[in-house]
Amino acid sequence: MTLSVYLSGEIHTDWRDEIVAGAEGLDVTFSAPVADHDASDDCGVAIMGAEADKFWHDNKGAKLNAIRTRKAIEDADIVVVRFGEKYRQWNAAFDAGFAAALGKSLIVMHGADHQHALKEVDAAALAVTETPKQVIEILRYVLTGALPK
Amino acid sequence: MTLSVYLSGEIHTDWRDEIVAGAEGLDVTFSAPVADHDASDDCGVAIMGAEADKFWHDNKGAKLNAIRTRKAIEDADIVVVRFGEKYRQWNAAFDAGFAAALGKSLIVMHGADHQHALKEVDAAALAVTETPKQVIEILRYVLTGALPK
Amino acid sequence: MTLSVYLSGEIHTDWRDEIVAGAEGLDVTFSAPVADHDASDDCGVAIMGAEADKFWHDNKGAKLNAIRTRKAIEDADIVVVRFGEKYRQWNAAFDAGFAAALGKSLIVMHGADHQHALKEVDAAALAVTETPKQVIEILRYVLTGALPK
Amino acid sequence: MTLSVYLSGEIHTDWRDEIVAGAEGLDVTFSAPVADHDASDDCGVAIMGAEADKFWHDNKGAKLNAIRTRKAIEDADIVVVRFGEKYRQWNAAFDAGFAAALGKSLIVMHGADHQHALKEVDAAALAVTETPKQVIEILRYVLTGALPK
Amino acid sequence: MTLSVYLSGEIHTDWRDEIVAGAEGLDVTFSAPVADHDASDDCGVAIMGAEADKFWHDNKGAKLNAIRTRKAIEDADIVVVRFGEKYRQWNAAFDAGFAAALGKSLIVMHGADHQHALKEVDAAALAVTETPKQVIEILRYVLTGALPK
Amino acid sequence: MTLSVYLSGEIHTDWRDEIVAGAEGLDVTFSAPVADHDASDDCGVAIMGAEADKFWHDNKGAKLNAIRTRKAIEDADIVVVRFGEKYRQWNAAFDAGFAAALGKSLIVMHGADHQHALKEVDAAALAVTETPKQVIEILRYVLTGALPK
Amino acid sequence: MTLSVYLSGEIHTDWRDEIVAGAEGLDVTFSAPVADHDASDDCGVAIMGAEADKFWHDNKGAKLNAIRTRKAIEDADIVVVRFGEKYRQWNAAFDAGFAAALGKSLIVMHGADHQHALKEVDAAALAVTETPKQVIEILRYVLTGALPK
Amino acid sequence: MTLSVYLSGEIHTDWRDEIVAGAEGLDVTFSAPVADHDASDDCGVAIMGAEADKFWHDNKGAKLNAIRTRKAIEDADIVVVRFGEKYRQWNAAFDAGFAAALGKSLIVMHGADHQHALKEVDAAALAVTETPKQVIEILRYVLTGALPK
Repeated sequence: MTLSVYLSGEIHTDWRDEIVAGAEGLDVTFSAPVADHDASDDCGVAIMGAEADKFWHDNKGAKLNAIRTRKAIEDADIVVVRFGEKYRQWNAAFDAGFAAALGKSLIVMHGADHQHALKEVDAAALAVTETPKQVIEILRYVLTGALPK
Repeated sequence: MTLSVYLSGEIHTDWRDEIVAGAEGLDVTFSAPVADHDASDDCGVAIMGAEADKFWHDNKGAKLNAIRTRKAIEDADIVVVRFGEKYRQWNAAFDAGFAAALGKSLIVMHGADHQHALKEVDAAALAVTETPKQVIEILRYVLTGALPK
Repeated sequence: MTLSVYLSGEIHTDWRDEIVAGAEGLDVTFSAPVADHDASDDCGVAIMGAEADKFWHDNKGAKLNAIRTRKAIEDADIVVVRFGEKYRQWNAAFDAGFAAALGKSLIVMHGADHQHALKEVDAAALAVTETPKQVIEILRYVLTGALPK
Repeated sequence: MTLSVYLSGEIHTDWRDEIVAGAEGLDVTFSAPVADHDASDDCGVAIMGAEADKFWHDNKGAKLNAIRTRKAIEDADIVVVRFGEKYRQWNAAFDAGFAAALGKSLIVMHGADHQHALKEVDAAALAVTETPKQVIEILRYVLTGALPK
Repeated sequence: MTLSVYLSGEIHTDWRDEIVAGAEGLDVTFSAPVADHDASDDCGVAIMGAEADKFWHDNKGAKLNAIRTRKAIEDADIVVVRFGEKYRQWNAAFDAGFAAALGKSLIVMHGADHQHALKEVDAAALAVTETPKQVIEILRYVLTGALPK
Repeated sequence: MTLSVYLSGEIHTDWRDEIVAGAEGLDVTFSAPVADHDASDDCGVAIMGAEADKFWHDNKGAKLNAIRTRKAIEDADIVVVRFGEKYRQWNAAFDAGFAAALGKSLIVMHGADHQHALKEVDAAALAVTETPKQVIEILRYVLTGALPK
Repeated sequence: MTLSVYLSGEIHTDWRDEIVAGAEGLDVTFSAPVADHDASDDCGVAIMGAEADKFWHDNKGAKLNAIRTRKAIEDADIVVVRFGEKYRQWNAAFDAGFAAALGKSLIVMHGADHQHALKEVDAAALAVTETPKQVIEILRYVLTGALPK
Repeated sequence: MTLSVYLSGEIHTDWRDEIVAGAEGLDVTFSAPVADHDASDDCGVAIMGAEADKFWHDNKGAKLNAIRTRKAIEDADIVVVRFGEKYRQWNAAFDAGFAAALGKSLIVMHGADHQHALKEVDAAALAVTETPKQVIEILRYVLTGALPK
């Protein structure tokens, strides 16, 4: 069994690297959004021409990013969505809803302070975690049946 | 043509009433989440028994609410998602993602200050609005072809 | 919002009647399997001719019943599955799996003594209940937002 | 033609090993649930933290196992479900229903004593068997057209 | 529960009338192909202009009939397919395959002499019958649970 | 049988009225795009605010119209697409492709001069017509089996 | 582009071998039913035990063959269905209907004498052929754009 | 992440070669229609026999081409549709509609003069471009996150 995992959400810490490193040796392929914040914001106008209006500047970029995001979520068996401490992160919750509607296995990661605000997202998940280490252990268990010692 | 419209998101102002009143005479049926904040939070334990742990208290309630929400979104032709000024509103973004993945026509409503943070949600929408009046005018146009005078 | 509810599982007590009576006045339509045990067992041979072999006797009947069951589950928004005290009730668990794969909202009903054995079924449910009264309260809440007093 | 086969159900005898060994040389890939009973029961709390309540202890574990089970069933061409002599085995019947709803080819395996109780499950199957040897012969026939001598 | 039933196949005897009459009082809606053999053969060229080539004459007609057939099968809960004594009746078998792939409940009707030739079609059915009376009894049982006396 | 028919394409002649009038007495419901050319072009900015750039002016309007168009096509059993003498009419061909991918019964209407250019669209259709009268006759035949005299 | 092609229908001449040989060098994978007539008829009882009744003898076998057939059709891009001179061949027409409902590209092969009887099947096809050579040329054209010289 | 890209539309300039060359080194597989105009027009009759009527000549060819086109669109993650200066190009718009209905990521390419006529197609796209270079840059960004310098 090979698992395809999409790592959605917060892009300001290195949690993705931690998971990828920790999952070494497991039969997993990872995908992720473009994590360069500036490139992600400006990709639309950089390729297809400037926009005077900030709304359309963002709209062009968000649509380009959607090409990658939707492909990755549709190909995924598991979608991990991490909510960090900062920003609104509505795109993370949007990805979670998108993944849930497609019947993907959803793993949510967030701190205890966001528990109440994320209760609808957590209720759609098969696992609610706090740390990358727990996600790694889940992937190992799902693939091999081995539990952490 | 009858339109089925689900009104998702912020539950602290009377925007739903405004839309329902403004759409009088149009061939539209509306649905909405339970808007009594306390009932919505406590429904799970009120019916199925108390939980010591806040996580499971919320989990039981969020799952009950999901019965209503999913039925309403699946039955909808149009999902209107309003983002207000307060709270995290991750459930609104989750609903938007869920609706987008099912191919529903998405109408987003929010103020200009949230434009950048909502760019991925807006990019999945067929209309981005600021006021209930605009939503009413969209419903009237879609059903009758009449534009505001 | 009209809810279509299929009442699956145990057919030896009057739990279905209790739910139907308790839901009076709510916008719900109920369906259920044929609850006459003998008719359900013998329908195939009674209509299409006797079988010497018990396996085919049962096979003919189970297929006829499947016409009704599948129609009812496919039309349902909510599938309630009750596990009673007696018998193997594998058809109840089969219905639960069938409903889950179709994305139906699943409500499970069983006593505490079956909790561990039903953990996989419960994990796929949006509500786990013990009594018909709780199911009635869930239907009322989902449709009206009203909680039990 | 490569067949992907999920081996669901009873985990206390070595029937899976027997099938895998007997199918050597055939173009089949097998998947199965985690067969370590204790790991399967405790995986949720072992990774994501203890629960005071047995229901949630089991719920956390069953959801983790569902990540593996659903992936395996969705990837499968054939789902073999074996019902043994002991326990309620509702998860086996649940898997059978889930697989049936997805249109998978279902092969059921059980002894004659369970025939009547499993009639609905058998009625959804393309083959009803009693032994691992029969399953092996089915796989060989489906892939090569060769019958047992 | 209302059943929608499509009556496919042989159009030279009055079996459809018999079923419709026998099902009076039951909550069933019936649909059927155009049973006027000449109209069915010539509809394409009668409406859209003559064809020199018999193949295209037939092709135009068969496509018009497909508008009706596919609508009826897609709307049906149950597809009854009757194989008579004469003609090739490949369109009946085609309808049966079409219905099976859409997951419709299939009821086949034919005499004993066609049993072996129809074994693949029968194997996809939930009921194999010989007479219109049996189909009526099945519809009554599925809707009301009542068996023939 | 009730047929739901979407009338797509050319909006500068009264062909829709002709079909609706001719189908009087038949069990058909019709839908159509907004046929007021100016309203259709300007609806987006009229409701949601002006755009400096013609591209976004058109984009906002086309997305509003898509709410109506997609609802109508998804609800339709039959999509009639008429190609007239003037303009590019790419939206008509787009609707045809959209309808074909959803498995709708496609009826194309166009003059002989466009035959070669529309060969791919015609090849996806169940009927290729030249006049509204032919469409009416098709609807009558499909619903009643009656051919033109 | 790799094409997956299922070769359905008549099993008494070597048309499959002819196509496979002629398609050498093209990027095609072929699948086919078990072509050993006796094995195909008796597989069910040979593996799972004898049946006194011919109906169930055939039923057991037809279901086993369905495991192979459905897998092959579901995996196929193109389903070629050949109708020969002899037998009823209802399973061929059933496969054609099954493939059509799944949106597979259908190629039918038959002699001119069966043209009228197969008009509904032909109307669902993207190509109607008479010889294996034509099927080979179609596969070559679809993959390489090269026409026969 | 590997992207599968179908290059639809105009076949009279070398824009496809330009994109394929520019995307060298990226993890992309391309597909395209048969670009030999004569072969594409005549393939049906060349393989399956001449037709007296131009309509059926074209019909046979268009259906053969549909085998390739549909396979390619269904396999694609991204469908690029280019509208050139000449011809009606209704097949390009048809492909765009087909791709949109399947939820593919749509990239449209056309000059400014066609902007208004293509507004419905553009409104369904995730990117609207003018040059092959922009498409290459989009593919590079989607796969690697790198923007043009």
